[in-house]
Amino acid sequence: MSDSDTTLGEIRAFEPARGEADHPHSAIMRFGADKPLQLDAGGVLTPFQIAYQTYGTLNAARSNAILICHALSGDQHVANVHPVTGKPGWWETLVGPGKPIDTDRYFVIGTNVIGGCMGSTGPSSLNPASGKAYGLDLPILTIRDMVRAQAMLVDQLGIEKLLAVVGGSMGGMQVLQWAASYPERVFAAFPIATAARHSAQNIAFHEVGRQAIMADPEWRGGRYLAEGSSPRRGLSVARMAAHITYMSDSSLHRKFGRRLQDRDGHTFSFDADFQVESYLRHQGEAFVDRFDANSYLYMTRAMDYFDLAADYGGVLANAFKATKTRFCLVSFTSDWLFTTADSRNIVHALNAAGAPVSFAEIESDKGHDAFLLDEPEFFAITRGFIDAAARAVGVS
Amino acid sequence: MSDSDTTLGEIRAFEPARGEADHPHSAIMRFGADKPLQLDAGGVLTPFQIAYQTYGTLNAARSNAILICHALSGDQHVANVHPVTGKPGWWETLVGPGKPIDTDRYFVIGTNVIGGCMGSTGPSSLNPASGKAYGLDLPILTIRDMVRAQAMLVDQLGIEKLLAVVGGSMGGMQVLQWAASYPERVFAAFPIATAARHSAQNIAFHEVGRQAIMADPEWRGGRYLAEGSSPRRGLSVARMAAHITYMSDSSLHRKFGRRLQDRDGHTFSFDADFQVESYLRHQGEAFVDRFDANSYLYMTRAMDYFDLAADYGGVLANAFKATKTRFCLVSFTSDWLFTTADSRNIVHALNAAGAPVSFAEIESDKGHDAFLLDEPEFFAITRGFIDAAARAVGVS
Repeated sequence: MSDSDTTLGEIRAFEPARGEADHPHSAIMRFGADKPLQLDAGGVLTPFQIAYQTYGTLNAARSNAILICHALSGDQHVANVHPVTGKPGWWETLVGPGKPIDTDRYFVIGTNVIGGCMGSTGPSSLNPASGKAYGLDLPILTIRDMVRAQAMLVDQLGIEKLLAVVGGSMGGMQVLQWAASYPERVFAAFPIATAARHSAQNIAFHEVGRQAIMADPEWRGGRYLAEGSSPRRGLSVARMAAHITYMSDSSLHRKFGRRLQDRDGHTFSFDADFQVESYLRHQGEAFVDRFDANSYLYMTRAMDYFDLAADYGGVLANAFKATKTRFCLVSFTSDWLFTTADSRNIVHALNAAGAPVSFAEIESDKGHDAFLLDEPEFFAITRGFIDAAARAVGVS
Repeated sequence: MSDSDTTLGEIRAFEPARGEADHPHSAIMRFGADKPLQLDAGGVLTPFQIAYQTYGTLNAARSNAILICHALSGDQHVANVHPVTGKPGWWETLVGPGKPIDTDRYFVIGTNVIGGCMGSTGPSSLNPASGKAYGLDLPILTIRDMVRAQAMLVDQLGIEKLLAVVGGSMGGMQVLQWAASYPERVFAAFPIATAARHSAQNIAFHEVGRQAIMADPEWRGGRYLAEGSSPRRGLSVARMAAHITYMSDSSLHRKFGRRLQDRDGHTFSFDADFQVESYLRHQGEAFVDRFDANSYLYMTRAMDYFDLAADYGGVLANAFKATKTRFCLVSFTSDWLFTTADSRNIVHALNAAGAPVSFAEIESDKGHDAFLLDEPEFFAITRGFIDAAARAVGVS
């Protein structure tokens, strides 16, 4: 039995050029020495840049802009064909002409977060100090750093106040941070399937993923791009582990059960006998084509560090004191990564802060991934909340 | 930042000598060419051996023998100091003089399963055909193969009928298999925190662990012992991922929450900032000292393949048709790996088969690991069930 029978197949690697300044598919906003990014870790990041996509048209009053914040493995390609995978944008079900977030009416901005690998400055970007990729020389970034950078982009786009900030999972953390850091700049906040802080179990799963990457000798202390290697097996294992947490037990059961790849029975080997095994291997392999391993480390760390209450004396309600932002929260019944209890915790804090808030727990067996999938009730709530905000602001 | 700052520390490796024939700490039963082990994969394993421990004294009627079946990472050292770790036996809380399974009254047998690495024949054993360690040349083993080998050991010990067969998790699968394969040889069966078949989610977690091991270049297609290397980082990551599934979200929260290693705050690095991270790293590192990576592959595969109903026309009740064995099942409320629903499924099949069965779901926030921990209600049920069986059989 050879290695190739039993392990992941040929895995192509993330190509750093895709993450560099000349990323051909997105608009790039550059911030020079006059506009450094202040970092929570201390010091500044300069120069830096943000890659972004826009959909629809900004109205004359500049009152119809909606910022979409992406999750761990997402990017700015919200509603256009992804330039690397050739697949539809990750939220094309929700965002587009006539969709719940209607680009015929709203000006929608998708950005790649700082630390990402689709054109915004991240660990795969060139470090001007060394002339090589940053690797782990990039400072650790926080959710607040990501949001601070987004606010600078929104400034540059001439938008004083966003009609809405919308995002799920890590994107939802950014939404909460936006509302806390810039309450006067967010009319409506829509955090989905998220939490005000990352749980011990979630930190634990992230740590497994990081250790899988760092255990890969090809990772080379984070210097793999400079040294021409790629920790693709480690990243693939990290993605496989994470992917299980994005689904529910029942969705895995419904999708795969104990069905075998080969109907003739067990192979009595370590081949991918069960369909769920080959599915997971495929998820791991496909991810490595489009994602940078060090970005994965930075994204997971930012989520682990997120604890909004901690920045406000340990009282989450203080993060939203006297806010005029209106909120809508959504959770999904089978999501065990970001549970309904996590959302309720935020709702209680918003209630305590006197903020206008609505909340829906949506019945779904699709686990955390439900927010990315076809969920009609979720779509209806999104449309209702966004359109009501638009009416309140006077967007025609 | 160096590699050693951010990744698992120095990890000693499992030493194959510990798994070899001359294991100094356990009794060894050898089965020569006249007694080959029939395998579900086809063919036979010969020669082979089983390492085992016994506690207490077999009575004259040979009616007081209890077989303990271990879980994935367990072994025969049920109730004595472990020769490798120096820690108490893994079930010393439950088994010993005066304990719920009272070695003053019962003759208790702990065996290392076939495929294991503590003295029974497994992938780290010498393959007589090659003169090297088996590695992946050992045939894939099933739960039924493990039980078939145990039955041969019990024969050799001169025991016709076991008073009880007891085990949790993978050990519980063996208990169910014993009752199905040898109903006339099991008076009482006590399967704990287990299932009659492995779920898609559990197969998925196992596959992640296997991929982590096989992604480690030191694994070398399973030939690491012959080639003098050791896939310790891969095995460590596999153990970390698995360990999360053995605990509950609430037990992780109670134990660690978001507490930091260093009270002065975040290090803004990839060091183990959170206590849960260093705990997991420690779990990974400690495991590698005592466990063989290929055995981990074989154990997980055996569990994945387990589907007792499939061997009986897809009807689980048929596995227990006309059985005279009495059953007691236990599940724990916060166990999300082997849920109460999994146990109820078995209970329903036993009901349909007309078997005497009792079932208790025990309130605990300790997750799957609860069956190994201090759970007074579980202890009381164990003592009650075992002692009642002894009375029924006439053990004084």
